[in-house]
Amino acid sequence: MSSSRLNSVDGLVSALLAGNRRALARTISHIENNSDFARPLLAALYPRAGSAHILGITGAPGTGKSTLVNGLARAYRQRGLTVGIIAVDPTSPFSGGALLGDRVRMRDLAGDPGVFIRSMATRGSLGGLAQATADVVMTLDAAGFDRIVIETVGVGQSEVEIASTAHTTVVVEAPGLGDEVQAIKAGILEIADIFAVNKADRDGADRTVMALKMMLNLGAPEKHHVMHHGRLLPVEMPEHASDHVAWMPPIVKTIATQQQGIVELLDAVEAHRLYLAQSGDRQLREQLRAITSLRIILRDALLEQLLEDAGSKRINQVVQDVVTRQRDPYTAARQLIDHFCS
Amino acid sequence: MSSSRLNSVDGLVSALLAGNRRALARTISHIENNSDFARPLLAALYPRAGSAHILGITGAPGTGKSTLVNGLARAYRQRGLTVGIIAVDPTSPFSGGALLGDRVRMRDLAGDPGVFIRSMATRGSLGGLAQATADVVMTLDAAGFDRIVIETVGVGQSEVEIASTAHTTVVVEAPGLGDEVQAIKAGILEIADIFAVNKADRDGADRTVMALKMMLNLGAPEKHHVMHHGRLLPVEMPEHASDHVAWMPPIVKTIATQQQGIVELLDAVEAHRLYLAQSGDRQLREQLRAITSLRIILRDALLEQLLEDAGSKRINQVVQDVVTRQRDPYTAARQLIDHFCS
Repeated sequence: MSSSRLNSVDGLVSALLAGNRRALARTISHIENNSDFARPLLAALYPRAGSAHILGITGAPGTGKSTLVNGLARAYRQRGLTVGIIAVDPTSPFSGGALLGDRVRMRDLAGDPGVFIRSMATRGSLGGLAQATADVVMTLDAAGFDRIVIETVGVGQSEVEIASTAHTTVVVEAPGLGDEVQAIKAGILEIADIFAVNKADRDGADRTVMALKMMLNLGAPEKHHVMHHGRLLPVEMPEHASDHVAWMPPIVKTIATQQQGIVELLDAVEAHRLYLAQSGDRQLREQLRAITSLRIILRDALLEQLLEDAGSKRINQVVQDVVTRQRDPYTAARQLIDHFCS
Repeated sequence: MSSSRLNSVDGLVSALLAGNRRALARTISHIENNSDFARPLLAALYPRAGSAHILGITGAPGTGKSTLVNGLARAYRQRGLTVGIIAVDPTSPFSGGALLGDRVRMRDLAGDPGVFIRSMATRGSLGGLAQATADVVMTLDAAGFDRIVIETVGVGQSEVEIASTAHTTVVVEAPGLGDEVQAIKAGILEIADIFAVNKADRDGADRTVMALKMMLNLGAPEKHHVMHHGRLLPVEMPEHASDHVAWMPPIVKTIATQQQGIVELLDAVEAHRLYLAQSGDRQLREQLRAITSLRIILRDALLEQLLEDAGSKRINQVVQDVVTRQRDPYTAARQLIDHFCS
């Protein structure tokens, strides 16, 4: 295939759909850089996506998420499935944040055309990372990957939200991480479809499992973030089929460095995938994903258009008024909007 | 003062400005819950704010940020200055994320009317946390606090951005935190006005200081995030006075649990405060703060209005089209916007 074919939108799309990895990498670069090709590429690829199963894997630093992702990818490959990995985790070896040992450990994946690894920068404008990640997920989906894994560090608000937009969210725990890190976890428990207690050969692993079990028995099994996302746009949510049994997040013990528990974790993910299809929850999650994307895109596009219409002279004046406290930012924003749509 | 006075906007504002702590707490609750009082309260308080110096304190979990904040607050009190503390850190004892020992350690602050502590939930809608934090900062500012400390965990994108909107950003490091946590730090170095190497009695403290020094000598002393924020709105930035010496972030060793180095850290913050005033950079940062606020408020208000104008029936249809892949979200958003404002 000639390289010049990859210099047009049509050429990129057909090469990407034919499995050309260079076309895939170049398409993702266009999207990340928001080049002139980005919108037409996304529009052309969007109808081809929708088949992949999307996993979010999140957890505190030090839980061994990346090694687990590595193990899962290998296990999927052994079952003949292709895997795309997106690391939005500054601690991940996939995104360049780790040591030589970790990089060596992932080298076996790097040479396999059935695995594609991409890291996303965690810097950038507010909200930009979430949508950029969603766009790359969609691109990998259109490119035909069977499973797409998004790895995020389970600490920041944005990072947790990104993982929670997956079909199946795996929260990784590990015993003995210290109190500060334990405290971080509190907020991410509610988004879990599956718990992996990694480093299960360490002291305290059973206590971690016990604590999770107690927490699950105390709380409702229904995921809270569904309700949270449900408020994002005023849409009607499909009713749950009345005869469907609620999903109770399983707890899987793993020792990722020794490949132990990986197959059990993969089986839990696949069981959840079937559950989503049979219960109708997959449809619900697709709606939530669409709603989240629309919100972010609308917000940013509206702002961009208002700023353009208002012009830099007027905006400068408004900023000056806010800095000198002659107008508060809410009133100033209201006035700009009233002028915008009049 | 009768409690009923606190049931009106005017009553709350005058009580808050007179130093009534119950009025302050109630005002913040109105703002956090976005009640009917929120906008009028913010509009009334905004002209009264602008005097406080705002500190952002951020760092990886386990660096001892909260103990450092506690020590700084006490040292400020000894100099007769009042301190407001906002914890947007799930690992902070101020936000309830830590153990009994930490809570006991902060008890001495809790009884002091010159200290006000508030924790912010790290959950909420995208972008909401940053603006909610800015609103609470403004409220504490209007209430007359001399110094306002925002403590965030230096891992998530949103959390780092929140800390970087302060006048003075302190990045807390600690030796021997393990590779994963070390890797996290990379992204937050560039936002530092001051480095605190806490737990300086631990092995490796000198190595941490050395590494920071090397990094500072390699990089430009100018803060990168100023440029980053400068792209947020198309405004003209004031020129730096040509004779002003660039700020080189000092590195202060502390052992917060033993109150060591706290006064030195406070002196570094105050030196930076003077530097900002004399160099004109304070004005620049105020512009950046105003720009960030305006962006977030405009974005959210525009989205809200579009959704209202479009109506849930149309929005439902669009979501359905996106889910069934008949339209990609970018095209769908474009169509909604074209219809809005026409």
